[in-house]
Amino acid sequence: MTPDPGLASWLQLALTPGLGPSTIRKLLRDFGLPQAVLSRRRSQLAGYASPAALDALDSASVREAVERALSWAAQPQHFIVTLADPSYPPLLLEITDPPPLFYAHGRLELLQRPGLAIVGSRNATVQGERNAEEFAKALSGAGLTIVSGLALGIDAAAHRGGLAGQGSTIAVLGTGIDLVYPQRNSALAAQIAEHGLLVSEFALGTPAAAHNFPRRNRLISGVARGCLVIEAAVASGSLITARSAADQGREVFAVPGSIHSPLSKGCHALIKSGAKLVESADDVLSELSGFHPLAAANALTAQAGAGEAPGLLAHMGHDPVDVDALCARAGLSAEQVSSELLRLELDGRITALPGGLFQRLEKARGA
Amino acid sequence: MTPDPGLASWLQLALTPGLGPSTIRKLLRDFGLPQAVLSRRRSQLAGYASPAALDALDSASVREAVERALSWAAQPQHFIVTLADPSYPPLLLEITDPPPLFYAHGRLELLQRPGLAIVGSRNATVQGERNAEEFAKALSGAGLTIVSGLALGIDAAAHRGGLAGQGSTIAVLGTGIDLVYPQRNSALAAQIAEHGLLVSEFALGTPAAAHNFPRRNRLISGVARGCLVIEAAVASGSLITARSAADQGREVFAVPGSIHSPLSKGCHALIKSGAKLVESADDVLSELSGFHPLAAANALTAQAGAGEAPGLLAHMGHDPVDVDALCARAGLSAEQVSSELLRLELDGRITALPGGLFQRLEKARGA
Repeated sequence: MTPDPGLASWLQLALTPGLGPSTIRKLLRDFGLPQAVLSRRRSQLAGYASPAALDALDSASVREAVERALSWAAQPQHFIVTLADPSYPPLLLEITDPPPLFYAHGRLELLQRPGLAIVGSRNATVQGERNAEEFAKALSGAGLTIVSGLALGIDAAAHRGGLAGQGSTIAVLGTGIDLVYPQRNSALAAQIAEHGLLVSEFALGTPAAAHNFPRRNRLISGVARGCLVIEAAVASGSLITARSAADQGREVFAVPGSIHSPLSKGCHALIKSGAKLVESADDVLSELSGFHPLAAANALTAQAGAGEAPGLLAHMGHDPVDVDALCARAGLSAEQVSSELLRLELDGRITALPGGLFQRLEKARGA
Repeated sequence: MTPDPGLASWLQLALTPGLGPSTIRKLLRDFGLPQAVLSRRRSQLAGYASPAALDALDSASVREAVERALSWAAQPQHFIVTLADPSYPPLLLEITDPPPLFYAHGRLELLQRPGLAIVGSRNATVQGERNAEEFAKALSGAGLTIVSGLALGIDAAAHRGGLAGQGSTIAVLGTGIDLVYPQRNSALAAQIAEHGLLVSEFALGTPAAAHNFPRRNRLISGVARGCLVIEAAVASGSLITARSAADQGREVFAVPGSIHSPLSKGCHALIKSGAKLVESADDVLSELSGFHPLAAANALTAQAGAGEAPGLLAHMGHDPVDVDALCARAGLSAEQVSSELLRLELDGRITALPGGLFQRLEKARGA
């Protein structure tokens, strides 16, 4: 892909030690795009960051890091997505501390799909891992993209289940995207890069560090519509993710278990404080407002007459259009239109655009 | 005990086939006590019951049944408690269909104590029975009287646990109080008659009949402040009891379990519809509003100085008094007063009266 001329400036801000996401957002708010920030005199930036950070901004080491990131992004299926990018996930813009940019490797369009975070203990039970994989497989089969953190145990099982369904899976990493942690999941990470998506907000080469994981957890919940905890001890990272989800206004789900199992205590604590108890994928689907599983979409298609060109496509025209306009044009309910849009999107006939818009995908001439 | 001269009239109404509790309450509302009802001309009663029921009212078979009940009640620790009796449990008066009278065998005063229903499957798992017994023992130890239905499985385990603590246990039967169903629980029933309380609203000799058990379940929840379901299938009798409890404004608690266990599905359904998930006796105690476990009472006593005459007794005088008045007299919080009252009641120094009143119990002269 052609490198975005502004991307180097985004990277320069993001890769400067001492400039955190909130400082960067303040600079963008006051001065505009990164290129405009960087064109300011140092004295104008003095109130925003420490002298050390301002010294670093123009340093050789930052320039080298920017070059490295640009050459990483030049490889196939590698992306650096900035706040200004139309493919920045709208849900992530809603969180209190969205990263100025993140790195992605794989099927970038998965970030525009409805996602569900599935997380839990690294030291899960055999039954817990099986539950995670089965929930993930069923929910991915219903069209949800399964988001998790590539940890051992529940996370890995959730990714495997996600890969088995058409919703696929997104792994949000706590390290640089060019590293795999833990090493034991490297084959899984390679599969996800090919059939799903790897995402990280950390600079290339950032090693695993305990303090980065809670920060990473807010992105796992942030790109998803809800968060399902399968097995978790009290005071575990999974509960941090669940708390992030609740703070971000996402639905929180938890799977119950024996009152004598330490790995159910975290789930029970969540249910006591308001999380939905779920026993099956259907329990999750029926609670996710605004999401209509593929079953509903398929039923609608069957009803409309199998094999026939679906009517909705004819109403779409060739310009981006939103659900309300389609309802009016087609004389259908918002629910019917959303189901049909999802089916069309999965069939590759339309694409979802930022801002709740949808557009037909045209076949190339001669195809 | 001296037989209540009006008791025969109460029994005559209650034992007449075709006069249900609601008909009897209507008659009492319109004419006063049963003796007044029975002194009316038959024409005045015609609108209330069928001719067959009015014929039966004065029949030889009803008179015989009344005699049998009176001679049953003349035995030690046997009681027939009518709506007019001060020992009729105040909580039971709150339900929509309180029985006009009920039979009781054992420690009648247990009905004035704070009670908790613990119910569940007859076909419980070994772990389920163990959980029931442990919850019951801990909660009885904290001063709650454990109420259940003398069924096999969870019920029996709950009664055993209740007997092990000072709260003891109440079994509400679905048969006449002179029968034990199921037979396998006859040794347990005998223990409950001696150390706890058996209760039934059904006439002596009423055999086990399926349609009487749901009716009985409303009394299990009705005499208790809350209802804890340990293990239950969906569409089980335990869920009927839990629904009664919710309808009666009682707290409903449920113990979670594996999503793969059929006997957890009833509990999970309850939690989904608003029941509190509980993992321990403490979870129950902290949710039961207005109940202060013995631990709190003991702490208060220790604080006040062990072995000293507690101050509250001096503030009680010799007339019935309510908690608000005691708070004002003793300068204590309602919580402190309630805790201390519970301790004094368990020590046999005071007695709880209907209407939230308490009274000192005096030692006999020369004792």
